[in-house]
Amino acid sequence: MPLLVTGSIGIDTIKTPHGMSERCLGGSSIYFSMAASLFAPVRFVGVVGDDCPFDLPGLFRGRDVDLRGLEVRSGSKTFVWHGTYHENMNDRTTDHVELNVLQEAPPTVPEVFCDSKFVFLANTAPALQMQLLSQIRSPLFVAVDTMDLWIRSSLPDLRELLKKVHCLIVNDEEARLLAGRLNLIAAAEAILVMGPRIVIVKKGEAGSLMCLADGSKFILPAYPATEVRDPTGAGDSFAGGLMGYLAQARTTDFDTLKRAVAYGTVVASFTISDFSLAGLTAATRKDIDARLGLLRKFTCF
Amino acid sequence: MPLLVTGSIGIDTIKTPHGMSERCLGGSSIYFSMAASLFAPVRFVGVVGDDCPFDLPGLFRGRDVDLRGLEVRSGSKTFVWHGTYHENMNDRTTDHVELNVLQEAPPTVPEVFCDSKFVFLANTAPALQMQLLSQIRSPLFVAVDTMDLWIRSSLPDLRELLKKVHCLIVNDEEARLLAGRLNLIAAAEAILVMGPRIVIVKKGEAGSLMCLADGSKFILPAYPATEVRDPTGAGDSFAGGLMGYLAQARTTDFDTLKRAVAYGTVVASFTISDFSLAGLTAATRKDIDARLGLLRKFTCF
Repeated sequence: MPLLVTGSIGIDTIKTPHGMSERCLGGSSIYFSMAASLFAPVRFVGVVGDDCPFDLPGLFRGRDVDLRGLEVRSGSKTFVWHGTYHENMNDRTTDHVELNVLQEAPPTVPEVFCDSKFVFLANTAPALQMQLLSQIRSPLFVAVDTMDLWIRSSLPDLRELLKKVHCLIVNDEEARLLAGRLNLIAAAEAILVMGPRIVIVKKGEAGSLMCLADGSKFILPAYPATEVRDPTGAGDSFAGGLMGYLAQARTTDFDTLKRAVAYGTVVASFTISDFSLAGLTAATRKDIDARLGLLRKFTCF
Repeated sequence: MPLLVTGSIGIDTIKTPHGMSERCLGGSSIYFSMAASLFAPVRFVGVVGDDCPFDLPGLFRGRDVDLRGLEVRSGSKTFVWHGTYHENMNDRTTDHVELNVLQEAPPTVPEVFCDSKFVFLANTAPALQMQLLSQIRSPLFVAVDTMDLWIRSSLPDLRELLKKVHCLIVNDEEARLLAGRLNLIAAAEAILVMGPRIVIVKKGEAGSLMCLADGSKFILPAYPATEVRDPTGAGDSFAGGLMGYLAQARTTDFDTLKRAVAYGTVVASFTISDFSLAGLTAATRKDIDARLGLLRKFTCF
């Protein structure tokens, strides 16, 4: 079942203790689509400026990613992000940002995408996420990401959005900030009261936590990686693997959700193994399934 | 099969965001024994001063804890520790320490304990741990704890000790410090080269990681607790539940080790639910088994 994603496309410059990658391809929708297309057809909605140096059709060649929602906006400039990861690889500093086209009007969802049933709204202003979502006629399962900036600056919009979506995927600090609770379980439970029936909290090296409105919980460690070269895109790849698996399964019962979190975890472990999209792009579905089997062996008792 | 433990007995004063407990019972061997006695007979070796205000035989009444190794040293004073937990409940500050009897001669292992097969050497100077271990004739499985102080000040002694034990149980910062590696998997693998065939890394709220010399790995999240009132003793309770289960099982194959880590995790979740020993003491084996079932449900996919 096709899965619609809207999010950023960026020109990233990344420094980590393992090296540097200048003006490489990044952005939430890129990582998400590369991950999700391992599982299901992806409908891509995003916008770049006419300075965009990347061959996106070439990047996704051989994958079922429908780029009819990709807008190349004349006279606009592509989003730029420079970041540095510190020695522990969990903390990062944003060195430089040029929002550029991201602060202009959002891209339009093509009419042929408006019947999408699975939808992921990557991190952007909640009012824009709402505007994008309103174009989808009858979605079955909508997941959103957000960030500290919107929790602080656009909380009323975000609270409205949370009433309309099924699942929120955020990191631990964002969950604590949104809920005003330090304990992550308590934070997730407080967010469930705001609307979504599923809250998934990404904890980086410590794995992830999923809480459902019916009280079900699932906790999964990160895949035990000894080689972490570039964590950029880990969260978006996690969301892509997770949503891709759900769209493939066409269902969101608890057992399927648990496997989806596990697939997201494994996909992210390939992303962080190399700079930019190199690790994720090299992974096949067979690699993913093999690592899922290992993760099960590492975690079940 | 009886399990021998040597470690501290302390008079603790604990402050957490949830309250304060003054001059309550603490110490590694106390938490360890209370946890381990849920599973197997415990042989207790420790020393207090004649100022010790606690009724230890009364505390362990109804549990199979053999206190013939408890020495009440005339003219000496009991170990005192004051600590404050910060808002996140993971970080703590030691406000005040009086080592007292802990800096005198260690207690003697009673002759009737010298045939013990399972042994846990709680955190103290590695030379003392070695001296205690040398009194055990033919142990089958020896686990040790250590801390940053000894890694920095007594590394040669610690390296000697690590050649003689089967398992090291440390927290994440200690593992990183000992191995000189930031990545925890890499750190555990570096420690395996120093001698033990098993390294177990406690990560607090993030759970634990076990690496074996044969390449096997097990990763388990912490039990999802919403009520954390006092984390004191969590690590020693974890070790107690783990070692108690191994002593009960009389074996240390990988599947048994995985279940032992899970039992340690669950036992620790009772410890942190209340101040001092209140949460742990109230837990029955039936409570523990019920929560183990839940933990399996929360983590397996």
